[in-house]
Amino acid sequence: MTSVPVPEGHVPDRIPLARIVGPRSVAVVGASEDVGKFGGRVIHYLIKHGFPGRLVPINPNRPAIRGLPAFPSLAALPEPVDVAILAVPVAHLEAQITEAAAAGVGACIVITAKLAESGPEGAALQERVVRIARGAGMRLVGPNCLGIFNPVDRAMLSSSLALEGEGFAPGGIGVISQSGALMGTLVSLAHDHGARFSRCISVGNQADLELCDFLDYLIADEATRVIALYIEGLRSPERFRAQLRQARAAGKPVLIVKAGRSEAGVQAARSHTASLAGSYEAFAAVCRDVGAVLLDDWVPMVLAADALDRLPRLKAPGRGVAVLASSGGSTAILVDQLPDAGLRLATLSEATKAVLAEWLPPTHLHLPVDTGNFREGTSAAGINAVVRAFAADPDIGSIVVPMTTSPRMAANAALMPPLAREGDIPLLYVMGAGAVGDEARAAMRAADFPYYDRASDALAVLRALEAEAEGRARAGVPPPERPAGAGPAIPEGLPDEGMLTEAEAKRLLAAYGIPTTRERLATDAEAAVRAAEAIGYPVVLKGVSRAVVHKSDLGLVRLGLADAAAVRAAFAEVAAALDRAAPGGMEGCLVQEMAQGGAAELILGARHDPDFGPMVLVGLGGVLVELLRDVQIAPAPVSLADAEAMLRRLRLWPVLTGVRGRPPADVAAAAEALVRLSWLAADLGPRLAELDVNPLILRGAGQGSIAVDARAVLRK
Amino acid sequence: MTSVPVPEGHVPDRIPLARIVGPRSVAVVGASEDVGKFGGRVIHYLIKHGFPGRLVPINPNRPAIRGLPAFPSLAALPEPVDVAILAVPVAHLEAQITEAAAAGVGACIVITAKLAESGPEGAALQERVVRIARGAGMRLVGPNCLGIFNPVDRAMLSSSLALEGEGFAPGGIGVISQSGALMGTLVSLAHDHGARFSRCISVGNQADLELCDFLDYLIADEATRVIALYIEGLRSPERFRAQLRQARAAGKPVLIVKAGRSEAGVQAARSHTASLAGSYEAFAAVCRDVGAVLLDDWVPMVLAADALDRLPRLKAPGRGVAVLASSGGSTAILVDQLPDAGLRLATLSEATKAVLAEWLPPTHLHLPVDTGNFREGTSAAGINAVVRAFAADPDIGSIVVPMTTSPRMAANAALMPPLAREGDIPLLYVMGAGAVGDEARAAMRAADFPYYDRASDALAVLRALEAEAEGRARAGVPPPERPAGAGPAIPEGLPDEGMLTEAEAKRLLAAYGIPTTRERLATDAEAAVRAAEAIGYPVVLKGVSRAVVHKSDLGLVRLGLADAAAVRAAFAEVAAALDRAAPGGMEGCLVQEMAQGGAAELILGARHDPDFGPMVLVGLGGVLVELLRDVQIAPAPVSLADAEAMLRRLRLWPVLTGVRGRPPADVAAAAEALVRLSWLAADLGPRLAELDVNPLILRGAGQGSIAVDARAVLRK
Repeated sequence: MTSVPVPEGHVPDRIPLARIVGPRSVAVVGASEDVGKFGGRVIHYLIKHGFPGRLVPINPNRPAIRGLPAFPSLAALPEPVDVAILAVPVAHLEAQITEAAAAGVGACIVITAKLAESGPEGAALQERVVRIARGAGMRLVGPNCLGIFNPVDRAMLSSSLALEGEGFAPGGIGVISQSGALMGTLVSLAHDHGARFSRCISVGNQADLELCDFLDYLIADEATRVIALYIEGLRSPERFRAQLRQARAAGKPVLIVKAGRSEAGVQAARSHTASLAGSYEAFAAVCRDVGAVLLDDWVPMVLAADALDRLPRLKAPGRGVAVLASSGGSTAILVDQLPDAGLRLATLSEATKAVLAEWLPPTHLHLPVDTGNFREGTSAAGINAVVRAFAADPDIGSIVVPMTTSPRMAANAALMPPLAREGDIPLLYVMGAGAVGDEARAAMRAADFPYYDRASDALAVLRALEAEAEGRARAGVPPPERPAGAGPAIPEGLPDEGMLTEAEAKRLLAAYGIPTTRERLATDAEAAVRAAEAIGYPVVLKGVSRAVVHKSDLGLVRLGLADAAAVRAAFAEVAAALDRAAPGGMEGCLVQEMAQGGAAELILGARHDPDFGPMVLVGLGGVLVELLRDVQIAPAPVSLADAEAMLRRLRLWPVLTGVRGRPPADVAAAAEALVRLSWLAADLGPRLAELDVNPLILRGAGQGSIAVDARAVLRK
Repeated sequence: MTSVPVPEGHVPDRIPLARIVGPRSVAVVGASEDVGKFGGRVIHYLIKHGFPGRLVPINPNRPAIRGLPAFPSLAALPEPVDVAILAVPVAHLEAQITEAAAAGVGACIVITAKLAESGPEGAALQERVVRIARGAGMRLVGPNCLGIFNPVDRAMLSSSLALEGEGFAPGGIGVISQSGALMGTLVSLAHDHGARFSRCISVGNQADLELCDFLDYLIADEATRVIALYIEGLRSPERFRAQLRQARAAGKPVLIVKAGRSEAGVQAARSHTASLAGSYEAFAAVCRDVGAVLLDDWVPMVLAADALDRLPRLKAPGRGVAVLASSGGSTAILVDQLPDAGLRLATLSEATKAVLAEWLPPTHLHLPVDTGNFREGTSAAGINAVVRAFAADPDIGSIVVPMTTSPRMAANAALMPPLAREGDIPLLYVMGAGAVGDEARAAMRAADFPYYDRASDALAVLRALEAEAEGRARAGVPPPERPAGAGPAIPEGLPDEGMLTEAEAKRLLAAYGIPTTRERLATDAEAAVRAAEAIGYPVVLKGVSRAVVHKSDLGLVRLGLADAAAVRAAFAEVAAALDRAAPGGMEGCLVQEMAQGGAAELILGARHDPDFGPMVLVGLGGVLVELLRDVQIAPAPVSLADAEAMLRRLRLWPVLTGVRGRPPADVAAAAEALVRLSWLAADLGPRLAELDVNPLILRGAGQGSIAVDARAVLRK
């Protein structure tokens, strides 16, 4: 985390957040005529993009900058400004913040870097600076940020070279980024494609104001229709999760790229804004749960944000893609890429085929449609008819139009926007050529319509639109309900912390209604025999010690003991093995029914994520789960529908439904066990560091499940 | 396949292929002043790009076109031309070809479409046209093509709008494409990035001259250093395979995108140029075998071709990537994407860290390096020092420099080309911004240095460079040698065609030295008992019928029969079951040793691909092989090293080496069996339609393997 916790006192904010993003007056500290300097660029861009408020250059050596009267210092201002922008050397930062606080500045945007991200010294300075500001009710954006672009209020409060671009008309995309340079880059790329932004906020080290503060603002902001976030680490994960729900409720899709998918990425993020990332998998699970769209790259994120701002949204997830192209070659490649992107070609209705038959030979009444095959050649009438038929086809959720160099590139491009606007499904136009395609791109920009330079971009955008539609569909699902007999009472007599024995872990499971093997702890061989006789042969015998995790690896598990003699012999052997493995740690042997007739084995788990709290996971048991990482994770508790969906998302899901002569497993029982475990995880909260059921044996359909082994670690 | 087989007679070609690609004289049929027409564009582009030869407009209605004397028809030409370019309506094509043949034209480039790709009528016309041409020794390019770009000879023989671009300086990239529009598009994109081409040939329907003809030419062509191919279907697969080997031997990397990875893609390719694709998997296996680079998209193909033309090649596969960036944000994202692209961040040497320590704080002496963390700020001296250290680091194979908007974008970009040229590893510069980054891009073009607009492009290119380096490393590997006892004699007494019994299939395996279970065929219960006693209990009993494929599914397999009584009972039950499943088809029961103590199970297979002949495949046994598609395929025969590499490429490879307490399996025996099977497949050739060994039980390391079940289908 970038910020050092700072006692905030009770000094009220001098101005609300909306006036920091859209200030009426701005002072630029270090303003200069030289656009080679930070302060020179900041004032240049404010003027260039038509800042309508009061603009005050601060410069001790010049009476005026860019024709505006300059003041020697913030202290010299006749009245306070809403915002002061500081790109001063780090050595001067503390003095400038002190002066700004004294001068009644509402907020400082601190572009200055080398604070917490540079080491302990910078972190201490950052803490002092925040203390000074908050002590005066002055807020800070940054440090180590690039400021704010606010096209709605024509307040471009930044030194970013992205502002070299012209004509930032206001639009619906709100951005919050922990990287200012990345924000400038993505805005610049998308702006050139005709995307329009509402407010873009670079939060840098989030020393005072943080991502969630601005996210509140964007969710409430009328101008913002879709939100794109670049995140390295969250200061307030639970607040963030609640906000994602609010955004969804407000009909504002949230698109996210988060650093730290890989170990090296975690380290890179830490070096950059000193952010500590929680588990990426937990973050991804939360995004799915609340219907936010998580992406791997910023290019598709900003292009998808634009699509969600300017194109109709998908009516429902899961429909097919229609492809209309001018070249068979690029189309064949695109069609091959659909499954890679989790998409599929649509199946044409008879009505659509009937329309195609008017333009195409009978051999070509299928997707993809290549206008080169039109009987009379490519024509506007034919394109119109085909696109209208696509828009009316119930299996077609979207249309992709990949275009290559061709004589009527620009004219054909110009057909698309009005045609697309007749229908209410997204049409994604791709112009793959270099500069010779610029006329077509210009036609799309002139029509205020998105376009893509790569088919791969269009497919990545479509995948994001699918995820958005899935999130929307999910928003109507009722919250999980606690099943009967799933706690909430926790069994007594468990240790306060540390590893539980298998028997203790299973008592936890049993308290939540998860079936476990019948078993008894026996401390000598004869007790073991009595236990076996009560349970019924054959039995399993397991050595019990809190010090041992992987019992099988140490020979502490004996299966299929068929009579008293076998139990006695096994007890002696296990006791000896345990004495070698954990001298003095033996608590006895667990005598257990031998669970038989399993159709499949699952691993169920619970974890406590430092950011988002209780999580449950499920995967197929055995060595494969680790090799394939075929595990699904969700925040606890989960509903029965969630649990079934998790099972269905497993790559090995078909194993559960019965493949090649295998009987189908009791999937309903698996989902039920997962739901119950999720309530256990939710109720225990941070006390349950981790719990694994391995395996949960699934019997045939309708025959239930049984937890055969379990381990758990509690925390105080 | 686009072409109809045409008897070629023995009429010698009027001109060699090199003069078709680089003609001295060109006639444009339908030449016009109107660039809205095909013929108008063709002559316009020839003039615009400075065609140095004789240029003859053919137009019956005008005395001159573009200031050049026009002729009313090809017949009216005073002397024959090397090439005539025809974009006439399909109804006039046959007459024009007849006239061209009579007029002594060397070759026609036929842009006209609606031939074989449009149905039987077009196919018949295409056949007639080829017959006319070949009967006169005149060659055809196309039809349904867009012609040829030949910057080396300034012969731009095409109507493609890509030629609206300026300044096509000659370079080293040769292209052959079955899609003319795609070729124009990819040339246009890459040309704008500064890539330079030698010859680009659009082959269309390949009715006469086909891809392999031009590939021969490019492999021999001095101007061509790297070859990029877009393929829908091959006319001469074996010739193509040999050419890929020749290209590799000539040091010319071949990059390929092939349509038909998906079923829908196969259909799209068929609609486009009437190509029938063989198995994509077999094609991919052949590419790997001969060291060609197969990609999924044309954008990375052409960018990688450019990188191979203008950057140093990787010294060796498998080295790490160094990242030097100006923004922590985009860098963290890029680092997260490395594993997705099969790449890894390099591990810095102590020497490199010592250099970094001169510029960076001690907390930042690792990859990625962000110049924003330089103690004294971003500087040319710092960048120079770091890149030089990277180039000298033994674990660094390449350097990626992802740049975002920043004040010195263009100046920092300009540092890269000379710096990169000091070393001999590729440096991939990424400018992610929109038009505000164009100055940086221009700096790279001015320095004749590649750049990328997306980090994802750079990573895709790097992956292609890795594949090229792997192919190069492979080129030195000796060809497979036949192991002792692996055929080549085929056992006698097998049926000529159709399904073999398990016992027959195993005789085939045994003839190639693959261990099989000891077994005997018994036609009655007492014979089965005698067989079991000879083999030794426990035994397996399997019902034998040529009509039954999946024996287990029908209850025809009985395991673990421990004595004579069990064998008698099993024989009766299996005979009854077989009588129900395939009445009258029972050939007896196979009594088999019960293979025990397996550490893992494999599936081995042989297939005969219609394009590339014998293939072998291997995967882990069980239901998972189908679900995960975790199978490796290679053209047969394979070497022991190849076979081991195939096993290592399996996702489930760690299962074979022993995970979580499992013993390691006899991987060497698995590789040996795969090699032997590959010789069987190679020797039988098209006679062996398919063969599966399922399972091959692998015992523990050093203890061998055994084929437990097998099936095979022979063809005449």
